[in-house]
Amino acid sequence: MDTRRVLVIGCGLIGTSVGLALRRAGVHVTLADHDPRALLRALRMRAGVRFVPGGGPVDVVVIATPPSTVVPVLVEAQRRGLGAVYTDVASAKGRILDEAERAGCDLASFVPGHPMAGRELSGAGAGRADLFVGRAWVLCPHPGVDERALRGVAGLAAACGAEVTLLPAEAHDRAAAAVSHVPLVVSAALAGRFAVPDADALALAGTGLRDVTRVAGSPAGLWRDILEQNAGAVAELLDVVAGELRLVADSLRAGDGESVAGVLAAGNVGRGHIVRALGGVVSRKAS
Amino acid sequence: MDTRRVLVIGCGLIGTSVGLALRRAGVHVTLADHDPRALLRALRMRAGVRFVPGGGPVDVVVIATPPSTVVPVLVEAQRRGLGAVYTDVASAKGRILDEAERAGCDLASFVPGHPMAGRELSGAGAGRADLFVGRAWVLCPHPGVDERALRGVAGLAAACGAEVTLLPAEAHDRAAAAVSHVPLVVSAALAGRFAVPDADALALAGTGLRDVTRVAGSPAGLWRDILEQNAGAVAELLDVVAGELRLVADSLRAGDGESVAGVLAAGNVGRGHIVRALGGVVSRKAS
Repeated sequence: MDTRRVLVIGCGLIGTSVGLALRRAGVHVTLADHDPRALLRALRMRAGVRFVPGGGPVDVVVIATPPSTVVPVLVEAQRRGLGAVYTDVASAKGRILDEAERAGCDLASFVPGHPMAGRELSGAGAGRADLFVGRAWVLCPHPGVDERALRGVAGLAAACGAEVTLLPAEAHDRAAAAVSHVPLVVSAALAGRFAVPDADALALAGTGLRDVTRVAGSPAGLWRDILEQNAGAVAELLDVVAGELRLVADSLRAGDGESVAGVLAAGNVGRGHIVRALGGVVSRKAS
Repeated sequence: MDTRRVLVIGCGLIGTSVGLALRRAGVHVTLADHDPRALLRALRMRAGVRFVPGGGPVDVVVIATPPSTVVPVLVEAQRRGLGAVYTDVASAKGRILDEAERAGCDLASFVPGHPMAGRELSGAGAGRADLFVGRAWVLCPHPGVDERALRGVAGLAAACGAEVTLLPAEAHDRAAAAVSHVPLVVSAALAGRFAVPDADALALAGTGLRDVTRVAGSPAGLWRDILEQNAGAVAELLDVVAGELRLVADSLRAGDGESVAGVLAAGNVGRGHIVRALGGVVSRKAS
């Protein structure tokens, strides 16, 4: 790709991992974070070198700050002319695109993105150069996007080892709710039953509970932000899942085993589709 | 332990694994199953030898048939005098104990049990000698149980490598709903969203969805039976989880981020308790 110089703003798990992956691909990476401790951790991880203003615009600016801060950071970065092209990595895209438009950002040079990778750990220290290898990296460009900007961001994602997918922001947000945001809320609701520890029950816990609640360990502050950014799609699907649980509860009370069996059978079929879609990822050990 | 001869009735995943574990411990195991193909698979796995009537009572009879069939099998086994002591391995205990009492079973020689181990796979072929190692094995004896019967079944569980825990049936059923039955329904409800495959969404799936839906692959027929046996405790807890999901949905629509954050923070705390309770099991690779 033609991208030789990248500025990563925000040195959390994703920003640091982007830096590590791009450096491995031979890109010159500079790093910035409003929190000097976060910046220091990413520098120590060798995810890039410290950003110093005045060096002229880089090829791509990656905004890897919390979702609700992406647009203000973009406004400021474009005002200062920090890059030729801009992208972000937030988990919800529709609201950011709307707000960027309302804030008067240049949408020709901004390509909103979402690498579908994460860990329940957070911060620079959890960063990994191979975090994006084989994972989807969705881009949701505005219809008026510049072709060269789109190519630049797609090349950056590919250099990180990801598979680039183009989706309208609304379709992305509905898909992200289904595969990521709603499963996280459900996992948290289940794990929350053990916030007051019940020793009898915990003594009986096994691998099922372990796996269902893994993502409940994800950082609560970040996830509040993500869920608020995708409130509509998440709320709609949560209602559906809650309705399904009530159906099973009512069916059990009414002795209607057929309805219970239907939910379980649909789960079997859906799990089969998920396993096939994930392919090799299923056999990869959870980190 | 003093148990030298054991009869296992029911050659599915659990019965076969009990046979394999006991043989490794030097116990003489005989196997029975009303389905000759299931019996053959367990014999080929070397989980024991074929049961032939007329050899006199064994030390312990393990009833490893589906939950709703345990009491009829127990009635018949006690009528024929197949063993000195009887146990079962079903995932719900209260209803079985009630039905056994109503059916006139001898509750002094029957020690209901539940090894807290399983796989999303089923059948003899999935059996493993180490399935119970380090896992809890709950016993829910009737107050009138014979001390020697209790010692015999506890020794059998220990010989399989499990940690024996005594609990009243009602406490067991509430705990099993929380750590196993409700998580399975929730996992099935989530996976069921993908029963009609949505290619856009599935292309974005990652390790989060993989882990949350793992137990949704469990055999639907067996689980319908388990859930019906523990209907009361499961329905009650499903209502709580459904209510939590609706709270998050309503809070997102109302822009009430604090309530959303509360559910996520409780999930963080609960997950911490689960991880500590599981100890080494957490780092064991999912099978």
